[in-house]
Amino acid sequence: VKRIDLAIFGAAGYGGQELLRLLSAHPHFRVTAATSTRHDGRPVEEILPQLAGFYPGLRFQHPDQALPEGCAAAFLATPHGVSHRLFATLHARHPDLDLVDLSGDFRLKDPDTFYAVYGAEHHFPERARDFAYGLTETNRALVRDASFVANPGCFATGALLALAPLAEHGLLAGDVVLAQTTGSSGSGAEPQAGTHHPERAQDMRAYKVLVHQHQPEIAQELTRLGMAGMGMQEFELVMVPQSGPFVRGIFTVAHVRLPADVDAAELYARRYADEPFVRMRAGTPALRHVVRTNFCDVSVHQRGRRVVVLTAIDNLVKGMAGQAIQNLNLLFGLEETTGLWAPGANP
Amino acid sequence: VKRIDLAIFGAAGYGGQELLRLLSAHPHFRVTAATSTRHDGRPVEEILPQLAGFYPGLRFQHPDQALPEGCAAAFLATPHGVSHRLFATLHARHPDLDLVDLSGDFRLKDPDTFYAVYGAEHHFPERARDFAYGLTETNRALVRDASFVANPGCFATGALLALAPLAEHGLLAGDVVLAQTTGSSGSGAEPQAGTHHPERAQDMRAYKVLVHQHQPEIAQELTRLGMAGMGMQEFELVMVPQSGPFVRGIFTVAHVRLPADVDAAELYARRYADEPFVRMRAGTPALRHVVRTNFCDVSVHQRGRRVVVLTAIDNLVKGMAGQAIQNLNLLFGLEETTGLWAPGANP
Amino acid sequence: VKRIDLAIFGAAGYGGQELLRLLSAHPHFRVTAATSTRHDGRPVEEILPQLAGFYPGLRFQHPDQALPEGCAAAFLATPHGVSHRLFATLHARHPDLDLVDLSGDFRLKDPDTFYAVYGAEHHFPERARDFAYGLTETNRALVRDASFVANPGCFATGALLALAPLAEHGLLAGDVVLAQTTGSSGSGAEPQAGTHHPERAQDMRAYKVLVHQHQPEIAQELTRLGMAGMGMQEFELVMVPQSGPFVRGIFTVAHVRLPADVDAAELYARRYADEPFVRMRAGTPALRHVVRTNFCDVSVHQRGRRVVVLTAIDNLVKGMAGQAIQNLNLLFGLEETTGLWAPGANP
Amino acid sequence: VKRIDLAIFGAAGYGGQELLRLLSAHPHFRVTAATSTRHDGRPVEEILPQLAGFYPGLRFQHPDQALPEGCAAAFLATPHGVSHRLFATLHARHPDLDLVDLSGDFRLKDPDTFYAVYGAEHHFPERARDFAYGLTETNRALVRDASFVANPGCFATGALLALAPLAEHGLLAGDVVLAQTTGSSGSGAEPQAGTHHPERAQDMRAYKVLVHQHQPEIAQELTRLGMAGMGMQEFELVMVPQSGPFVRGIFTVAHVRLPADVDAAELYARRYADEPFVRMRAGTPALRHVVRTNFCDVSVHQRGRRVVVLTAIDNLVKGMAGQAIQNLNLLFGLEETTGLWAPGANP
Repeated sequence: VKRIDLAIFGAAGYGGQELLRLLSAHPHFRVTAATSTRHDGRPVEEILPQLAGFYPGLRFQHPDQALPEGCAAAFLATPHGVSHRLFATLHARHPDLDLVDLSGDFRLKDPDTFYAVYGAEHHFPERARDFAYGLTETNRALVRDASFVANPGCFATGALLALAPLAEHGLLAGDVVLAQTTGSSGSGAEPQAGTHHPERAQDMRAYKVLVHQHQPEIAQELTRLGMAGMGMQEFELVMVPQSGPFVRGIFTVAHVRLPADVDAAELYARRYADEPFVRMRAGTPALRHVVRTNFCDVSVHQRGRRVVVLTAIDNLVKGMAGQAIQNLNLLFGLEETTGLWAPGANP
Repeated sequence: VKRIDLAIFGAAGYGGQELLRLLSAHPHFRVTAATSTRHDGRPVEEILPQLAGFYPGLRFQHPDQALPEGCAAAFLATPHGVSHRLFATLHARHPDLDLVDLSGDFRLKDPDTFYAVYGAEHHFPERARDFAYGLTETNRALVRDASFVANPGCFATGALLALAPLAEHGLLAGDVVLAQTTGSSGSGAEPQAGTHHPERAQDMRAYKVLVHQHQPEIAQELTRLGMAGMGMQEFELVMVPQSGPFVRGIFTVAHVRLPADVDAAELYARRYADEPFVRMRAGTPALRHVVRTNFCDVSVHQRGRRVVVLTAIDNLVKGMAGQAIQNLNLLFGLEETTGLWAPGANP
Repeated sequence: VKRIDLAIFGAAGYGGQELLRLLSAHPHFRVTAATSTRHDGRPVEEILPQLAGFYPGLRFQHPDQALPEGCAAAFLATPHGVSHRLFATLHARHPDLDLVDLSGDFRLKDPDTFYAVYGAEHHFPERARDFAYGLTETNRALVRDASFVANPGCFATGALLALAPLAEHGLLAGDVVLAQTTGSSGSGAEPQAGTHHPERAQDMRAYKVLVHQHQPEIAQELTRLGMAGMGMQEFELVMVPQSGPFVRGIFTVAHVRLPADVDAAELYARRYADEPFVRMRAGTPALRHVVRTNFCDVSVHQRGRRVVVLTAIDNLVKGMAGQAIQNLNLLFGLEETTGLWAPGANP
Repeated sequence: VKRIDLAIFGAAGYGGQELLRLLSAHPHFRVTAATSTRHDGRPVEEILPQLAGFYPGLRFQHPDQALPEGCAAAFLATPHGVSHRLFATLHARHPDLDLVDLSGDFRLKDPDTFYAVYGAEHHFPERARDFAYGLTETNRALVRDASFVANPGCFATGALLALAPLAEHGLLAGDVVLAQTTGSSGSGAEPQAGTHHPERAQDMRAYKVLVHQHQPEIAQELTRLGMAGMGMQEFELVMVPQSGPFVRGIFTVAHVRLPADVDAAELYARRYADEPFVRMRAGTPALRHVVRTNFCDVSVHQRGRRVVVLTAIDNLVKGMAGQAIQNLNLLFGLEETTGLWAPGANP
């Protein structure tokens, strides 16, 4: 069996922890370095007791420390703003290192949009074009040939899988309304007001109404799909992210009024027939069936030209670490499902 | 202090339990009869231990049994299809009895719509016109003069308070998209698959996509408001109800593209300035702040002509029992807030 | 109606918020000052939006600022270590001010125990004896005559109401095992690792096994009750606090092996017959029935001399703010239940 | 790779669903029959959409229907009372079929105890002795040589792993108090009052206080371990099962007063050093770290001779389906961890 050694930067965050969890069973990838500024030098299994038994001997190292000999690829599970600086250093030191960045730093191709969205200047704007946008289902060929992958945002993953088939057929037009609800793990491992259990446990609320940072990312990719596909009409994304009282998952409701008479259910069934990680549902998807899996479950509902598409994903897996592994599988010529092919649970 | 004796039909259901809870502190209303077919003859405090200490001596009686002497009004907290038969019997026996019906039986004024929505024939379709539609904030005068009130559905309450100010100004046009998420208590006291804890506790899903029974009710009332107000444009309601993993509350996101340049926030602030139970929010509303209260918290977000309105209510209070009491207060000439004026909690 | 003006110190914490919520409906007490170092000068309704409509005009003030004229009493909802210093300042400035302290600072009568438990020296150890220990059900007479009340800890309240009847009859002996589970609101308003929603929402764990700070408080009061009652036997408290994935409530399981043949159920029924806020249950208590109320529901189970007593309280109400008001009611000669007499809900 | 064909009886229940989930990744076991009376003839992936993609072609069959050719073993994930009748039929038809029964039917070796516990007569009491009691960690040798395994109850698994090391050393004496809290999935797939989300989501309560059916099972096994070990002292189990508002997991707190001076932590560390699925914890175990895994996390706390042992398991995995597979692995001479070796998650 081929062994490919990997590093995870930001391994103590939720993205990093999920990578460690998923990779513990991967037949080819082996984690030989896990960085954490805070836990530098401490055993991974002590800081992350859920992993006890799976990473004996592995200790967190400082991100500035040299990578172990033989590291072929790295995941950057570091925050927005950190990843692109880290990339520069890493790439300079290890020009052959393949990289999957889980942050938003290399997703937006236009530096002005990046500035507007993240409120900070990008130090290597020209580099963004070297990164394949890693929504596997729409960019498989690009990812396969890439050295660098910008892994999609979690909201973007749920939204794009809901809208890509329409975009590819030039069927997005007018207002495209996205109602998306995320679980608390999307806020990361650091305790904060919005994830304080006494106030989150039975609450629901919205945030960043009409101004979420994934909106330009979604728009950019939908436009690209339209361009590459059957042409493009004018459309406007309207996005209202909501916070739900669950831990994992993003549930997406996408509303589109079709510019033409199309059987949407048929179109989606065809489009996703060979996608291993997209499952069409007769009723509606449910978060509980996809949680801790790399699946995106989808249903399509239509009344005349009005179409509603629902998707359910686990924000930390298909929306983050799972999709990152799916991309790295491709990049290394492995079967896309390697290490990820596991069903959901019901209760 | 004036004492008004009341009966509650269907008192062991969640609507009935909530009426009993709220009325325990009402200075004028006194519950002298509580019906339950299943618990006929059993002490209320034994079946509903949360109320122990508040209804000593009260026993459930059969709905067919005569009401105690002096009963001036009744709440019908009975299911759809039961209420309208019960109404006939009750009204025949007690022509002076005032009634608030919490079911959907008398909300829809058009019998054909009723048939289409509830899949059953209405036995007294002509009676629906005798019922004031009890969304207090839009129908206060009607309720005050009514003998019979059709209390709004919980989804309808959240949606209408989000859209009424626009409807009244003829500002609804085109697609009006409603993303609403309900807690599990909306499904009632009877255990069923959709409220089985192991499958609901961390789940999110949609149901009755584009076909929820409250949609015609919302459309009917919005149309009425438009007619009575500044005129009406064509609009189409698009409703996707979702189930969230919380117990109480409905969180509503309403999307409208205005047909004219209007400062929506200003319009809402003005419209709701004197409504005791509607509170405008600077950020976004949160279910946890309204749960167990009769408040509806509202926020308005605008980008050009695109408007998003958010509302948060407790489905069992403002969406059900609380609003029913608010209506009965008006009907009896009491201060609307009587017995309902209590703040929310945070955790 | 008599009006008594009050101040709340630490009013933005969970204890303080709960006092504000409960006092909004109190017919005699009026909050004229609410302190918060962090929110000094900000409107209460802006910081605590759940209270919007109930405290118009009230702004947080700095704890060092002078109290408004006419303040007759104060709640200290401040953390351990803060309260006893605050007490000294306040008492010096306002010698007539009655005080209920919600922290642990004045509960332990023995300074050495205090030091051992809280790891800090007490600056006014002699003062602890001036504070009545405010478990209303066992210390009613003391509280009535006191100027200063040390409100019990939440775990202590649940444990003592489970064990007091046995202690009073000299029936505690040998190992007294306490398994208690608390909701997340007991950790306070400040986000921290233990209340991070993604890690708390479906978790259960223990903490401070055998070393919780309420243990000496419980032992002290049980010993006092034994002394004052039918004599005392040797017993040893064994306490394992657990954290559950709910927001409010403490569920207590107390295990005792009786030193004599006694019908425990009968003893408890008699002891609590006239206690307004203690309700005996035929089955077992349930947190959902007492949440947001001042009730303690109790059940007693026996097999030979083995007795298990279960209690359920809301940690923020009977375990904190509600009991504090209950005590202040007594101290001011009001009916004990004033402002607190409200039932629970079921869902 | 060796292929062993299996049948699952009661495959649509939570035990059965969990077996299907775990076995989907097992390298040797292949499910060729899944029975369900209710879903007879329906595709497994349609009834259990979380498994879509993993059991194409498999349909539920009626339990009376003949097993497919080549079935070497079966799991009985059927309810108490059903399993032992099914066993008789199956064993008569397929004398060579190995069986793991997940119900309580063959755990108790004494028919009188069975009658007392389950309130029903056992039709094949003599058969109970042919079943190895499948707590793998204490009965590995027996299971390896068995044809029939009685898989332990979920509470029993959590309790026995907490107490076995003491029992084996004759260190149980006097009162052994068990406080155990279970998630809602332990109640099975059928909706019922106790698992109705609106009433379970934020609740905690006890049930079957002192009379849970797993108590005799725990006592039987502890006694056996004592006999087989260093001798036996008198002890009495005191068990209070509690229901928590989480889906998966059993958290156990076991209290023992040692009859001798022993370093309990050292004893446990030694006893469990080579157990693959038992992990000693420095702090306290947490359900979230073991959920969906076959691990039992354990911590030991001591004050003099007072010992508290905490264990955390997933009731559906180590407490049910996972342990059943662990046992079948042994029975077929496979590595015990086959198909089960996966870490937990944190959020």
